[in-house]
Amino acid sequence: MIDKKHLNAFTAMVGSENIYDDKAHMIAYSYDATRTRFEPDAVIFPRHEQDVSDILKYCNEHQIVITARGAGSGFTGGALPANGGIILAMEKHMNKILEIDTQNMVAVVQPGVVNMDLQKHVEELGLFYPPDPASEEYSTLGGNVSENAGGMRAAKYGITKDYVMALRAVRANGDVIQAGKRTIKDVAGYNTAGILIASEGTLAVLTELTLKLIPKPKYKKTYMGIFPSVDNAMNAVFKSLAAGANPVAMEFLDKLVIQALIEKLGVDLPKEAGGVLVGDVDGNVPEEIAFQLKTLEESFRANGATEFRIAQNDEEAKELWYARRNASQSITIFGNKKLNEDISVPRAKLPEALNAIYAIADKYGFTVPCFGHAGDGNIHVNVMIDISQLDEGHKCIEEIFQLVVDMGGTLSGEHGIGTAKAPFMDIAFNDAEMQLFRDIKKAFDPNNILNPGKMGL
Amino acid sequence: MIDKKHLNAFTAMVGSENIYDDKAHMIAYSYDATRTRFEPDAVIFPRHEQDVSDILKYCNEHQIVITARGAGSGFTGGALPANGGIILAMEKHMNKILEIDTQNMVAVVQPGVVNMDLQKHVEELGLFYPPDPASEEYSTLGGNVSENAGGMRAAKYGITKDYVMALRAVRANGDVIQAGKRTIKDVAGYNTAGILIASEGTLAVLTELTLKLIPKPKYKKTYMGIFPSVDNAMNAVFKSLAAGANPVAMEFLDKLVIQALIEKLGVDLPKEAGGVLVGDVDGNVPEEIAFQLKTLEESFRANGATEFRIAQNDEEAKELWYARRNASQSITIFGNKKLNEDISVPRAKLPEALNAIYAIADKYGFTVPCFGHAGDGNIHVNVMIDISQLDEGHKCIEEIFQLVVDMGGTLSGEHGIGTAKAPFMDIAFNDAEMQLFRDIKKAFDPNNILNPGKMGL
Repeated sequence: MIDKKHLNAFTAMVGSENIYDDKAHMIAYSYDATRTRFEPDAVIFPRHEQDVSDILKYCNEHQIVITARGAGSGFTGGALPANGGIILAMEKHMNKILEIDTQNMVAVVQPGVVNMDLQKHVEELGLFYPPDPASEEYSTLGGNVSENAGGMRAAKYGITKDYVMALRAVRANGDVIQAGKRTIKDVAGYNTAGILIASEGTLAVLTELTLKLIPKPKYKKTYMGIFPSVDNAMNAVFKSLAAGANPVAMEFLDKLVIQALIEKLGVDLPKEAGGVLVGDVDGNVPEEIAFQLKTLEESFRANGATEFRIAQNDEEAKELWYARRNASQSITIFGNKKLNEDISVPRAKLPEALNAIYAIADKYGFTVPCFGHAGDGNIHVNVMIDISQLDEGHKCIEEIFQLVVDMGGTLSGEHGIGTAKAPFMDIAFNDAEMQLFRDIKKAFDPNNILNPGKMGL
Repeated sequence: MIDKKHLNAFTAMVGSENIYDDKAHMIAYSYDATRTRFEPDAVIFPRHEQDVSDILKYCNEHQIVITARGAGSGFTGGALPANGGIILAMEKHMNKILEIDTQNMVAVVQPGVVNMDLQKHVEELGLFYPPDPASEEYSTLGGNVSENAGGMRAAKYGITKDYVMALRAVRANGDVIQAGKRTIKDVAGYNTAGILIASEGTLAVLTELTLKLIPKPKYKKTYMGIFPSVDNAMNAVFKSLAAGANPVAMEFLDKLVIQALIEKLGVDLPKEAGGVLVGDVDGNVPEEIAFQLKTLEESFRANGATEFRIAQNDEEAKELWYARRNASQSITIFGNKKLNEDISVPRAKLPEALNAIYAIADKYGFTVPCFGHAGDGNIHVNVMIDISQLDEGHKCIEEIFQLVVDMGGTLSGEHGIGTAKAPFMDIAFNDAEMQLFRDIKKAFDPNNILNPGKMGL
């Protein structure tokens, strides 16, 4: 509960139309995609950076905890008020595309801009913003930066951090800082932007993002490889990339996902298929497309592919992508609840990792369909359980995390830690590393008012 | 001066063959490329990470300052012991390429490995490590990461930070940490590697680097555009890139450099030329090369280029590059001392920036030839002075820095801050930003033993 006098102080700052503490708002802002619920004590809609600064300064002085929030579409609870306090909701006012600088190929946006709105806007200008998290239609760029969101195009184009040139942010004490420049190179001072990216709002509140754009590629084609086994498909991933293929995306579906797609949606895939790789290649000239497709096809066939399909037009491309796009909803045939994790391993470890994950699944008696971004080593592992099996499900996941970390992989390729993966941090980090995280947190936010209770800190 | 008992303690750790405090060693380790001198009190050659940890732990307990050093080829004093103490010299033992993982396209190296040694090694395996600072023949990868070194290929391939996947480092208290993974995506925990890159050894000592490699491009060609004025050339830079050109490098020579090259080395360039752009394009197919050259030529000619040369073989390529490679030595005709700065601005600001720099030079009566990495906005500005004009020279540079920062640029595109640019930090950063840097420094190194006196902290 926040004292009435504090609410009055905030109301004086932002106006009564921008602060709410009624039950309906508290419920509306208690969710994200984890379906865990934490109710805040109040929701504030800051109008601009100065509001953010004033609010944080006040919170810091009065030890009021505060959590910034974009669309609330995260998978790990990063934007949930795990310890109550204020939700600072960016989607109402701080949602403007401030500038598209076509000469320098740079976008300047507020954190509440929806990813796809930026993508569409810049594509009309012949430019391209590559990061494409699955939530691109609704997640905000502030959230994308805070979680360092990935996506399918990461295989060729990298992830959100590769497109953040600069940002403005407010520290816990209200100080406004600029980190980075609208320049390709900048080595003056500490790389503060580097540490704020992926920090889940625990170090500062983002107020403005300067994002790199690139020219939109002229040609694109969609391919699909069908393999007899997961092993074949996973070997084809790293071998084709090491052979020089550089696809925009290389997405993976395992045998269980293929079964589900056929059964639930009648997707045109062979019943006996053990793995599918699907993705796009792009380039400036048709010959580059041909080179990419040839490199992929040769590697895929050398690794046992029984079919290599190439979409000849947009409609065929849509058909090939249909399987991948419906993977997540199709696997509901295996259970009424899925525990969805997003492990990532070095790509050459994918065959071994997948087999070991299936072995763990067998031991627990769970069905674990897997799909995802094989081209960058990031796989969505879905432990299908009945709601009564939650404890066993979590044990199974813990075992999978341990396996992945032992292989040099990570707890999260793109979803973040938040509250959902916080209990597993000690699998991935030793005492010295956790202590460093705590020291960093304390340097930015000595009173621990910014999104406390996240990342196991 | 370091107490004899401390020297004995270090000797017990590393053996007498790995610690020196004689005058000859102190002088040898007092230099870098700035020609400023700071003598250490002792030089230690750690054999491995455990030595680094033991030494730092001891230094931290006894408040002994310590500076890690690679090749000492930096341009801003980053590796100089500005406050005496220990030099931790990595080039003797911690100079091994530990692993080239061709399947995941990753190199694991110790910090003392010379950049070019890694480049050559991986190119034999068909792989490519793009960052190519001008010091590539002698600078170490630990130094490259500590300064976030750039280079010519940054226009297409980015800078050192874009290739650091993970690192191991020792904190001031001796704690060993791992930051990052051998995975493309990793969003678990703070991005500690992100803040250690470019931190000039002030936050931790690097002990191992995991670097991203890419497939070596199959085709490459060298181009040169000759322009009547600097304005024409600088407009051609950002307009050709916005038109979709993606050259590996786009290097710039101004009118003064062209004059010097003709006069001193008889280089084949037109006397009346006002600016030159030279670089490579690369690709997987010849048609991509043709596309790049066509895009460049069209843009260059639309911006007034009088000539567009394409090298037809390696020898012609070498000839075109000869001008750029000898820019630095040719300009000695203008004075016996140069103050060499490496400002960086958003690319579309290059025409305005260059003109304003020449105006400042005129005001002071200095000749200021400029050349460098126009493709990424990073220009080497050389204020040519007589040794008696040092004070005036520094005033001129301060004015140039102020101009660059006002244009949204940075004090340093690739050389870092060190001691040389420390006096100018308050041009680029406000009190809140400097305070944050100090807070970060304190979190990592509360006793300020790691390379103190750098970055204006």
